Amino acid sequence: MRATCHPRTLPPTLPLSLSPLCTLPLSTPVHHAVVRALHWNADSRTLRILDQRLLPAEVVERELRTIDEVEAAIQSLAVRGAPAIGVAAALGLVASFAREAVPSRVALRAAIDRLAQARPTAVNLSWAMARMRRVVESAVGGAPLLDALAAEAECLLAEDESMCAAIGRHGAALIADGARVMTHCNAGTLATSGIGTALAPVYAAVAAGRRVEVIACETRPLLQGSRITAWELDRAGIPVTVCTDSMAAALMRAGRVDLVLVGADRIAANGDVANKIGTYALAVAASHHGLPMYVAAPSSTIDAQTPDGAAIPIEQRAADEVRRLGDRQLAPATVAVHNPAFDVTPAALVTAIVTDAGIVRPPYHFTQ
Amino acid sequence: MRATCHPRTLPPTLPLSLSPLCTLPLSTPVHHAVVRALHWNADSRTLRILDQRLLPAEVVERELRTIDEVEAAIQSLAVRGAPAIGVAAALGLVASFAREAVPSRVALRAAIDRLAQARPTAVNLSWAMARMRRVVESAVGGAPLLDALAAEAECLLAEDESMCAAIGRHGAALIADGARVMTHCNAGTLATSGIGTALAPVYAAVAAGRRVEVIACETRPLLQGSRITAWELDRAGIPVTVCTDSMAAALMRAGRVDLVLVGADRIAANGDVANKIGTYALAVAASHHGLPMYVAAPSSTIDAQTPDGAAIPIEQRAADEVRRLGDRQLAPATVAVHNPAFDVTPAALVTAIVTDAGIVRPPYHFTQ
Repeated sequence: MRATCHPRTLPPTLPLSLSPLCTLPLSTPVHHAVVRALHWNADSRTLRILDQRLLPAEVVERELRTIDEVEAAIQSLAVRGAPAIGVAAALGLVASFAREAVPSRVALRAAIDRLAQARPTAVNLSWAMARMRRVVESAVGGAPLLDALAAEAECLLAEDESMCAAIGRHGAALIADGARVMTHCNAGTLATSGIGTALAPVYAAVAAGRRVEVIACETRPLLQGSRITAWELDRAGIPVTVCTDSMAAALMRAGRVDLVLVGADRIAANGDVANKIGTYALAVAASHHGLPMYVAAPSSTIDAQTPDGAAIPIEQRAADEVRRLGDRQLAPATVAVHNPAFDVTPAALVTAIVTDAGIVRPPYHFTQ
Repeated sequence: MRATCHPRTLPPTLPLSLSPLCTLPLSTPVHHAVVRALHWNADSRTLRILDQRLLPAEVVERELRTIDEVEAAIQSLAVRGAPAIGVAAALGLVASFAREAVPSRVALRAAIDRLAQARPTAVNLSWAMARMRRVVESAVGGAPLLDALAAEAECLLAEDESMCAAIGRHGAALIADGARVMTHCNAGTLATSGIGTALAPVYAAVAAGRRVEVIACETRPLLQGSRITAWELDRAGIPVTVCTDSMAAALMRAGRVDLVLVGADRIAANGDVANKIGTYALAVAASHHGLPMYVAAPSSTIDAQTPDGAAIPIEQRAADEVRRLGDRQLAPATVAVHNPAFDVTPAALVTAIVTDAGIVRPPYHFTQ
C-alpha cells in the first residue's frame, strides 16, 4: 500500500480558496478559483474543513480538534464525499491526538473504530481507518507513533490528490469539445482532497481547452448538486445549469444532455454501483435515451469483497432531512418518509467505470 | 355543454375543512377530514381559497375579490391544479363583478382574456374562460348577465365535482386491495373542486373498503407532493409516505410500488400527456420496471385540437423557484437554472388514461 504513496505531491498547505491544482497542469483560468474541501497544516497538525452544510449562502471554515468534532462533521455532512471523508477521518484522528505526548493505543483504537462507523456506505472511510489501525498496531509507541500516523494520513491525502488527477486524465477522453455533462450530487473538489472524481474529467477536459457545460441535478434531499457542485463549478468558471432531479429525464428527451457522469460511494465486484440516491433514476433514464452513463471513482471505491449491489449496506437517514429545510416544514411533521442516502445502479446500466487506473467497460469482474 | 351540468349536486357551501363529499358515498372515516381547494358562497357570490403556498405549515384562507387577486392567486399557485384553476377563474370572475350593478361587457371580456392567460399549459383554464365568454356574448345585459355568469360558473363547479366522482368510480377498478400507489404533484381534492383526479380512484377504492397506501413524490421545485398531497391524504386518514423525486426509481426497483397514478394538465389527441415536471421520469422508470403508468384527468383535459405533445406549450417558470426556498439560498444566486413547469410523457409510456367517461387504453385517438 505504502508503495503507492507519493508525499512529494503534497503541497505544504492547501488554502481553502485560490489554491492552485498541484497535480494537474491547468492552462485555463479555472485554477484561479478552485476550492478545497479540507486544509491540513502539516506543521501544526491542524485540520480545517469548509463547512459544506452552509453553502452556497455562507463560506465558513471549521477546525476539527477532537474525535467528537471529526465524527460530527462526517455524520452531519459538514465534510462529505467518499474520498474526502476517508482523508478527513485520518487527518482528524491525527489532529485529535496531536496534543498528547504519549497517545494511548487503546484510545486510538477506540477512536478509529468510532470514525470507521461514522457513515456506513462508503468503503473509503473504513479502508482509510484500516490503514490507520495497521499503523497503531505496528509502529513504535509514544511520539513516533503519532509521527507514523501523521505520515500515513498525509500519505492518504497525497494519494487522494494523485488519484483525482489520474481520473481526470483518463476520463477526459470521454468528454468531447462542446459536451453537455449531466452530473448528480457533488463528486468534485469538495468531495475529495483533489479535483474530484466525477468532475475530474470535466476539469481536465476544460484544462485541455475543451468547452464543457455541466448540468447539475440539485440532488434532494440535501441539495449537494445545487448547493455545492453549482457553487464549485461557478467559482471555477465552468458553465453550469442547475435542474431539479425530476427534470433530468425530460432534459435527456429534449436532446440537451450528451452523457451522465457521476461518482460512486462503493462499487461491487460485479460492477454494481452504490452512489447518492437518484443516481439509479439517472441511469434508467440514460439507458432509455441511449446516453452513456459513466461512473468515475477511485480504485479504493471498488470493494471486490462485496459480490454485488445487494450486499452493500444502504444508510437510511433521518426523515426530517426530507420533511424540513432549515426552519421550513416541507411535509407534515409526522408523515412517513423514505430517506435512503444511496441507491444501487446495476452494472448493466453502467457504460464504463473510470478509475485512477483507467477506463473499465463491461463485463465488470473486479478482483482484489 | 350545459346538458352535462347538474347544479343539484352543488351543496350550498363547501367549508374548507370537515366538508362531506357530496358526490361519492363514503363508508369510511375518510370523509371527516377531506379538505377543499375553494369555497363558493352562492348567496353572497364570494370566493375563498385555501392558500396552498403556505401548506403544510399554515392553513390560511383568502377571499378573492378582484381580477387582480384572482389572477395573482392562479399565477402564484395559491390555487392550483388544472380543474381547480378553471373553476376558480370562473367563480373569481363572478365575484370580481358581483358588486357592479351593470357589469360592462368590455370589462368582462378584458377580464376573461386576462384570466385565460394567467397560466399557459392547462387547457381547463382557457376552456372555462371560453364558456364564460360565450355567456358574455349571448346573455341579456345588466343584472341578468351576472346571474347568467354565476349560473355558468356554478355549473362548472358542479361539473368538476361530478367529474371527480366519475373518475373515482372508473379508476378504482385499477386499484387492488393492498395496492401501493405512487403519485406525483397533487391531483387530489386540493387540485379540483371535488375528490381530485389522480387521487379520486384512491379515495374511491378506500371508500369501497380497500387498503391503499400512497407514495407521494415530493415534486420539486414547489413540493406539491410533500406539502399538499401528503397533507391532504394524512388528513383523510389514508397512509402516505413521502419520497424525493429522485427516490422513485429506486423504490420501484425495490418492489415497493405497484402502480403509478398521476394527473394531467393537457392530453393531446394522440395520448401524449403534459403534466407536472417529473411525470416523464416516473413514466420512464415505470416502463423500465414493468409497472403500469396511469393518467387520470377530466375529459376537458383532452385537447383534440392539439395533435401531439410537441404542440403543447410548456410554461417556463422563474429560476428562483429552484434556487431559493423561502429565505434559503439553495443554489448560487446567479447560476443558470432549468425550470419548466411541465413535461410531456409520450403516449407509448401511458398504460391507460382514466377520465370521467371511463378508461381508455392505447392506441389513443381522441377526437372532438
